[in-house]
Amino acid sequence: MVKILLSGCCGKMGTVISNLVSEFPNLEIIAGIDRFPRELNYPVFTTPDDVNIEYDVLLDFSNVSTLHKLLELTERTKKPLVICSTGYSQEDLDLINEKSKTLPLFKSANMSLGINLINSLLRKVTPLLYGNYDIEIIEKHHNQKLDSPSGTALLLADTIKDSISEETHYVHGRDGHKKREKTEIGIHAVRGGSIVGDHDVIFAGTGEVIELSHKAISRDVFAIGALKACEYMATVKNAGLYNMDDVLGL
Amino acid sequence: MVKILLSGCCGKMGTVISNLVSEFPNLEIIAGIDRFPRELNYPVFTTPDDVNIEYDVLLDFSNVSTLHKLLELTERTKKPLVICSTGYSQEDLDLINEKSKTLPLFKSANMSLGINLINSLLRKVTPLLYGNYDIEIIEKHHNQKLDSPSGTALLLADTIKDSISEETHYVHGRDGHKKREKTEIGIHAVRGGSIVGDHDVIFAGTGEVIELSHKAISRDVFAIGALKACEYMATVKNAGLYNMDDVLGL
Amino acid sequence: MVKILLSGCCGKMGTVISNLVSEFPNLEIIAGIDRFPRELNYPVFTTPDDVNIEYDVLLDFSNVSTLHKLLELTERTKKPLVICSTGYSQEDLDLINEKSKTLPLFKSANMSLGINLINSLLRKVTPLLYGNYDIEIIEKHHNQKLDSPSGTALLLADTIKDSISEETHYVHGRDGHKKREKTEIGIHAVRGGSIVGDHDVIFAGTGEVIELSHKAISRDVFAIGALKACEYMATVKNAGLYNMDDVLGL
Amino acid sequence: MVKILLSGCCGKMGTVISNLVSEFPNLEIIAGIDRFPRELNYPVFTTPDDVNIEYDVLLDFSNVSTLHKLLELTERTKKPLVICSTGYSQEDLDLINEKSKTLPLFKSANMSLGINLINSLLRKVTPLLYGNYDIEIIEKHHNQKLDSPSGTALLLADTIKDSISEETHYVHGRDGHKKREKTEIGIHAVRGGSIVGDHDVIFAGTGEVIELSHKAISRDVFAIGALKACEYMATVKNAGLYNMDDVLGL
Repeated sequence: MVKILLSGCCGKMGTVISNLVSEFPNLEIIAGIDRFPRELNYPVFTTPDDVNIEYDVLLDFSNVSTLHKLLELTERTKKPLVICSTGYSQEDLDLINEKSKTLPLFKSANMSLGINLINSLLRKVTPLLYGNYDIEIIEKHHNQKLDSPSGTALLLADTIKDSISEETHYVHGRDGHKKREKTEIGIHAVRGGSIVGDHDVIFAGTGEVIELSHKAISRDVFAIGALKACEYMATVKNAGLYNMDDVLGL
Repeated sequence: MVKILLSGCCGKMGTVISNLVSEFPNLEIIAGIDRFPRELNYPVFTTPDDVNIEYDVLLDFSNVSTLHKLLELTERTKKPLVICSTGYSQEDLDLINEKSKTLPLFKSANMSLGINLINSLLRKVTPLLYGNYDIEIIEKHHNQKLDSPSGTALLLADTIKDSISEETHYVHGRDGHKKREKTEIGIHAVRGGSIVGDHDVIFAGTGEVIELSHKAISRDVFAIGALKACEYMATVKNAGLYNMDDVLGL
Repeated sequence: MVKILLSGCCGKMGTVISNLVSEFPNLEIIAGIDRFPRELNYPVFTTPDDVNIEYDVLLDFSNVSTLHKLLELTERTKKPLVICSTGYSQEDLDLINEKSKTLPLFKSANMSLGINLINSLLRKVTPLLYGNYDIEIIEKHHNQKLDSPSGTALLLADTIKDSISEETHYVHGRDGHKKREKTEIGIHAVRGGSIVGDHDVIFAGTGEVIELSHKAISRDVFAIGALKACEYMATVKNAGLYNMDDVLGL
Repeated sequence: MVKILLSGCCGKMGTVISNLVSEFPNLEIIAGIDRFPRELNYPVFTTPDDVNIEYDVLLDFSNVSTLHKLLELTERTKKPLVICSTGYSQEDLDLINEKSKTLPLFKSANMSLGINLINSLLRKVTPLLYGNYDIEIIEKHHNQKLDSPSGTALLLADTIKDSISEETHYVHGRDGHKKREKTEIGIHAVRGGSIVGDHDVIFAGTGEVIELSHKAISRDVFAIGALKACEYMATVKNAGLYNMDDVLGL
């Protein structure tokens, strides 16, 4: 049984984690950390400094301000730290990088297992298909989203671009009288209603179409990814900066 | 049994029609017209002038040059004429319009039954949904297509636009930092491989997405539409300019 | 402005309704009824008997036990009652039916606007397409769902069946060596993960496929349907038993 | 430039190959073999015995009866043989296997590059996802198809089954009152109209759905796969029995 210490246990994502951990029979939350503690079915420390129990993995869903104290605790225990807070400064990221030389740390751009899996697959299949297959991405999100295309669509598109030796370019919509060039990668941003987040990568060839698709149903997907990361990090022996690709083993 | 006289019987579409007519138990081709006749399992006249047999519907898949002679034949027989040739001049179209005052003529912008059906449905559902649902169109075609968006996508978009009292505008792709406006109708033109032609109309609301979709599999779809039109026109008693909406009865 | 009195205002769906009402500029909740009242931004009565304010529509998301008192209140005010509680006995349903002779009542099998819309469209398009198009339904739900196919899939299938004069029959999966019969309506129940609820109705013809699809994103969809029903019922003058088809005006 | 000798050059698939080879700038057909030769833009031998020119790859789209003579020619030239004829007896298959010890031979169950690619990906992703994700397959084919599920759906399902250590079982349709078991692999065979062949593999997890999809547009897909195989086999130095997985390099 992997014993998780959950930082940010009383926040929104902390609550989601607490609910979903029961789906993982080999994981349990044995304690939490939160500046504003509430009564939970495990003890809650108000700061990492107070932690005086044994745990296997420290999972962080608090915020950037706790980074230093979490790293201090990790130096003390030598146990893996899974960082899921977002919005770190370049200075913070440099610190994480530096500390990963002596500590087992985990940090990933996108916590969805599925998106990371598809991203991995794109690295394999793009070099095989490009040239005979035209590549286009369709993403769909709710009508309140500000950025188009989505960060995830750009992550996938960049992976595709980096897997092709020839210079390619992104096309964001088409309107006019002009044949598609082989080096185009079309990216189409659909916006509407309360769509959570769909991403389709299309490889269209002569006589066939191959698609890799991902549909997010709810925010649970990030909690599941984090718990998968805990499961994996509990098996890690060496210092290093790990990410979802390691978890997936691809 | 509806007796069809097939103009252009030895051409590409004529051959498709001849093959597909067996799927319609109440239709039969009793004769053809073609400037370059071949041996077929029905008699072939080389010009409409020579036709000396009785028929119920005259179906034309030849080309614009035969229009006058086909209209003369129709004036002689008073039997319905289904016009499926394309590329008519404005003068030709005016003539068709004029002649439809005394003859039963059929002409439709798109011969696919499915596209016409979806177009009809859009007229009904758009006024019900617009305001609470965001409307976006995705179309996909092969990589040799010159125009983006497709004529069919624009046909559907125009139907949507015309069904909304508020002023709406088309958005062909998104790239930047800006929330969707309620009055946008997104149109996304995917190009790749040998895709025959897909059209999805998306109504995305709070908590649900409704989609009306059409996928063309092959050119057969136009032949089927033409034969459906023959079936319908055989029942028509009055002069007039008929189209696929009449066939669909919507 | 339509003034809504919300019965069950402190329950789960009551809370969803209170959050979503702001998306409807012409609706406002002016008071609530709940046996276990909490502080809300409108007054809450503990029983329908106590209601002493004017309202335009009474919306009920409480439970079956309140039916009699809600009908009494409705008899007193003559204002429309939108019934969204579920699980009524046959006796209850008979009472609703009886009372609808003198009162404007609303009750619908499925509160999703989209499902009701697609159901309406099926009544129109099935008679046009059956014979030349094969009809199949695919539905997808989470892995905890007990019944297969879903009630909604059966609702749609029954609508299709009732729209065809010929006798058709449902096929739940295929395994063997046997050609599809024209009179089959395939119904495929996919189960997996936490899928909220997808329904695709496929009309597959020669050369083309037409699809009508619905994807539920969240429970919000039922709240939206209820508020749409309130909007409609506020315009109703006569007694009667109304449902979503009336709201849609199809 | 890879010089292809095309066996069965005057048949249906031979013609498709001849048309599509121009899409491969590094491939050319320099001669053909056909029992019933026609005038083509390259010389045609009536039997493999007569071949007296140099080639790089021998591509066979004739029929089972030519196997022995093709293997004799291959023994003479030591050049790779890509076998795309189908319907071999067990005796024939044993012979191919035996000869592959000394000759470079290619033979694959399915010539579509896309299906083979998806099959390869399934071997990678299934062990990662099974347990947290439910796996279901939807396949769609025309209404004249006799076998359900399709051979390709079973190929994909078997690959999934073989990638899971736990015992799983196929479920062909659902109808009743029973929760999905974790060990089920649902396979849904949709039949309708003239659908060429779609295969969707669905991994449905908590909060997300991942899909790998393939849509066949036309028979071209098999010709393209064969030409890809020629391209690959021209680079092969050693004897052996190669298949599409080698071509894909996965």
